[in-house]
Amino acid sequence: MADPRFYSVAGPFTLETLAEMSGARIGGEVDPGTTFTDVASLDVAGPTDIAFLDNRRYADDFAKSAAGACLVHPDLAAKAPSSMALLLTKEPYHAYARVARSFYPMAQMAASVGPSAVVGETAVLGVGCRIEPGAVVGEHTEVGRGCHIGANAVLGDGVVLGDDCKIGANVSLTYCIVGRGVVIHAGVRVGQDGFGFALGPQGHVKVPQLGRVIIEDDVEIGANTTIDRGTGPDTIIGAGSKIDNLVQIAHNVQLGRGCVIVSQVGISGSTKVDDYVMMGGQAGLTGHLSIGAGARIGAQSGVMRDVEAGATVIGSPAAPATEHWRQVATLANLSRKGKKKGS
Amino acid sequence: MADPRFYSVAGPFTLETLAEMSGARIGGEVDPGTTFTDVASLDVAGPTDIAFLDNRRYADDFAKSAAGACLVHPDLAAKAPSSMALLLTKEPYHAYARVARSFYPMAQMAASVGPSAVVGETAVLGVGCRIEPGAVVGEHTEVGRGCHIGANAVLGDGVVLGDDCKIGANVSLTYCIVGRGVVIHAGVRVGQDGFGFALGPQGHVKVPQLGRVIIEDDVEIGANTTIDRGTGPDTIIGAGSKIDNLVQIAHNVQLGRGCVIVSQVGISGSTKVDDYVMMGGQAGLTGHLSIGAGARIGAQSGVMRDVEAGATVIGSPAAPATEHWRQVATLANLSRKGKKKGS
Amino acid sequence: MADPRFYSVAGPFTLETLAEMSGARIGGEVDPGTTFTDVASLDVAGPTDIAFLDNRRYADDFAKSAAGACLVHPDLAAKAPSSMALLLTKEPYHAYARVARSFYPMAQMAASVGPSAVVGETAVLGVGCRIEPGAVVGEHTEVGRGCHIGANAVLGDGVVLGDDCKIGANVSLTYCIVGRGVVIHAGVRVGQDGFGFALGPQGHVKVPQLGRVIIEDDVEIGANTTIDRGTGPDTIIGAGSKIDNLVQIAHNVQLGRGCVIVSQVGISGSTKVDDYVMMGGQAGLTGHLSIGAGARIGAQSGVMRDVEAGATVIGSPAAPATEHWRQVATLANLSRKGKKKGS
Repeated sequence: MADPRFYSVAGPFTLETLAEMSGARIGGEVDPGTTFTDVASLDVAGPTDIAFLDNRRYADDFAKSAAGACLVHPDLAAKAPSSMALLLTKEPYHAYARVARSFYPMAQMAASVGPSAVVGETAVLGVGCRIEPGAVVGEHTEVGRGCHIGANAVLGDGVVLGDDCKIGANVSLTYCIVGRGVVIHAGVRVGQDGFGFALGPQGHVKVPQLGRVIIEDDVEIGANTTIDRGTGPDTIIGAGSKIDNLVQIAHNVQLGRGCVIVSQVGISGSTKVDDYVMMGGQAGLTGHLSIGAGARIGAQSGVMRDVEAGATVIGSPAAPATEHWRQVATLANLSRKGKKKGS
Repeated sequence: MADPRFYSVAGPFTLETLAEMSGARIGGEVDPGTTFTDVASLDVAGPTDIAFLDNRRYADDFAKSAAGACLVHPDLAAKAPSSMALLLTKEPYHAYARVARSFYPMAQMAASVGPSAVVGETAVLGVGCRIEPGAVVGEHTEVGRGCHIGANAVLGDGVVLGDDCKIGANVSLTYCIVGRGVVIHAGVRVGQDGFGFALGPQGHVKVPQLGRVIIEDDVEIGANTTIDRGTGPDTIIGAGSKIDNLVQIAHNVQLGRGCVIVSQVGISGSTKVDDYVMMGGQAGLTGHLSIGAGARIGAQSGVMRDVEAGATVIGSPAAPATEHWRQVATLANLSRKGKKKGS
Repeated sequence: MADPRFYSVAGPFTLETLAEMSGARIGGEVDPGTTFTDVASLDVAGPTDIAFLDNRRYADDFAKSAAGACLVHPDLAAKAPSSMALLLTKEPYHAYARVARSFYPMAQMAASVGPSAVVGETAVLGVGCRIEPGAVVGEHTEVGRGCHIGANAVLGDGVVLGDDCKIGANVSLTYCIVGRGVVIHAGVRVGQDGFGFALGPQGHVKVPQLGRVIIEDDVEIGANTTIDRGTGPDTIIGAGSKIDNLVQIAHNVQLGRGCVIVSQVGISGSTKVDDYVMMGGQAGLTGHLSIGAGARIGAQSGVMRDVEAGATVIGSPAAPATEHWRQVATLANLSRKGKKKGS
């Protein structure tokens, strides 16, 4: 189904192989040797496609689907059409991710340094790197094995990339040490001066920014996001954290492991975010805060105080979620009463 | 008036020609053969300039203006200075756009492939394309006639551009099919992976993103805006839609025709926006919503529910505009009363 | 302490020299000939480091610090450990900025035009310019003395840069006149068309944008920020203003001198901002406003009306700060009462 201009599909795979790949077990009585040729969503899948059901909301689509096979939670399996092969798993979306990655593996590209690319004389490139046209790799820069550097990307002097990193087109990386398996999308800016000025009526004096950005393994950073380097301490993005597009991360921010930061969030200087924190789109955090592990920060929140581990806050200024929604309801009620009186 | 470092003015044009260009009709008794040499705003225009009055707020400027000619609604014509030639039209700003485009036509640039540009062997370039220095055009990429590809822009493998597109400097386009007459400003990112992860405490697993971005005819996209490709379905930007700078459009979003999206808006995944919707700056929309045709979404709104066709909503969470402003007034009143009691 | 991969430290400097550099006077009885080798923060500084205390919050760190010397306000000097050399000043952070710039001066780079860079035949480069690989300098473009143009940056035709400007990687500058000592970070977009359309149900007609962007001396602009050119009048960024990352500045905006604009702010068209205005992160301003000198606009504010000189506003819609916080407290109180009644 995926456009062959852009994607090549692998397979086909037997139901048995799909069960192995996904960690699901075969339900029902379909022949384990039946082959499937592609992934597809429930509403468009045909008899040789494998789909998934992760959200109860789509249970009706599931019941009517023509998909040949489906990854599904055992509790929902009873609604399946009779002809559908089932792959039962408690985590259908994770299982789908594994199956989809088997049908559409990352393209293996030949190692090369493209035309117009400029690699510094003292730079070190690992085995199997592909440097696209126009990319610039600075002096004393170290690029790990199997990295892919996009066209017109710029790696500044001294930057270090671990193995298997994927750097998008037109990215700029400076003053940073990057781990393994990191994905940085097009237009990301890492390592520029933070917003450090000694402010004053005679003019604002620039304060040298002497730290770095440390990006740990398996981080992914969305397009046109900006991450400033530390002032002396480092800015740190913890392992496995996923950052969306157009996010701003200021100097000395520390993100823990596995954080999820949705688009257009802004985190001010020196705020420390513990592991597995989630932030909704356009949320803003002031500086020097501590955000506890597993906290959830709602979209468009304005966070001005520390947040405890596990708490959910929302609103601007941010409040515990139940409090915020009660405030929203209170104001709506008062406003409605005022209207009646007035009319 | 425009700086000749950057702009070349055409003309002069007679009043008669200007009337034809603009679709306005000549009012008053000025000689239709009178020539005009430039456009200018009412406050600085001189006797050989043509200005326009679109907003009643500027009616005083109009009455005092030294402009030789002015595009104006017939209802406001009576306030004109006696020496001013009038071009009467119900849409003075549209008429001005046409006149200004005649005085300052898009520069015609010679077809060429600049130094350091890299064009894939299997790429197809239409007649009259200009590829600026350092631009990279991938394999199997198709560029229509008369396109202008800015310096250091990157068109990924397989990308398709229709005729007469204008791609700014340092743009990255991947996994997309682009219509005719599309303008994409500097630093735009189209087609990168959407934010697709199967989240979990053992780490977040990347889900392959298998769709494209479809950009229809006459779309304009502002600087540093990001548009992610679909997960399997496509992300779609409808014909004639205008998107400002630093906007985020997530995977599977569908924008209808003629939408106007102001700067720093964020639209979350799978939200469907019907034709001619307008969104003010910094508005945010959660995922999987339906926004009806002609709806208006206020600046900084946080939209969490479907919006009906023609409705105007504002606030975070967004509410119908009258309700929102009543809430704002209610809170201001209560707060003021509380202050009096307390004092 | 700074990573030698990225930074080279100058010095050492005697206490006497540090006093001269910083404008501070020596307190206590340490030998003025004692030498110091680096700057460091109070918590990690050792006996050969110089630190600073600017914020009373860190007074305890100061009392326990092992720093050999410290820049400090005379009022706080009494808390110093007995072995610490003191440099007394009423502006410790400014003084630190000067000291840190002496230890870490801007790297002097040899003038050069890098490989794959493309400089227009009619461009004029001042003495001592360094043009990094892949940068593109247009026709009739003028670059002052001692400028540094980052890799893959693009300076459009006719652009003018004053002396000693520092342009980051992957920047695009068009239709602009830039003063001396301006710092533009990676991915900034200056001079593209503003969002100018004559809107209508038959389609939105593009209106030619005929102005420029004027950037005065000593401005600094953060990564991936976008500044549109004027419609006819110019967009102006006043001398010494500091703009953070991902900020949007629309056509015809005028910023005065010394303004401080934090990340992700959006300023709509034709708004005039007087000198030394400060805007917190993610604030938004509608168009055609006047913001008085020295005004302070809180983070995430939505400013829809003019703001008087010296005023502080916050909230969306923005209100005077005391009024806003009283409203926040009023709503929290009412909501709490409602809860008690309900329970």
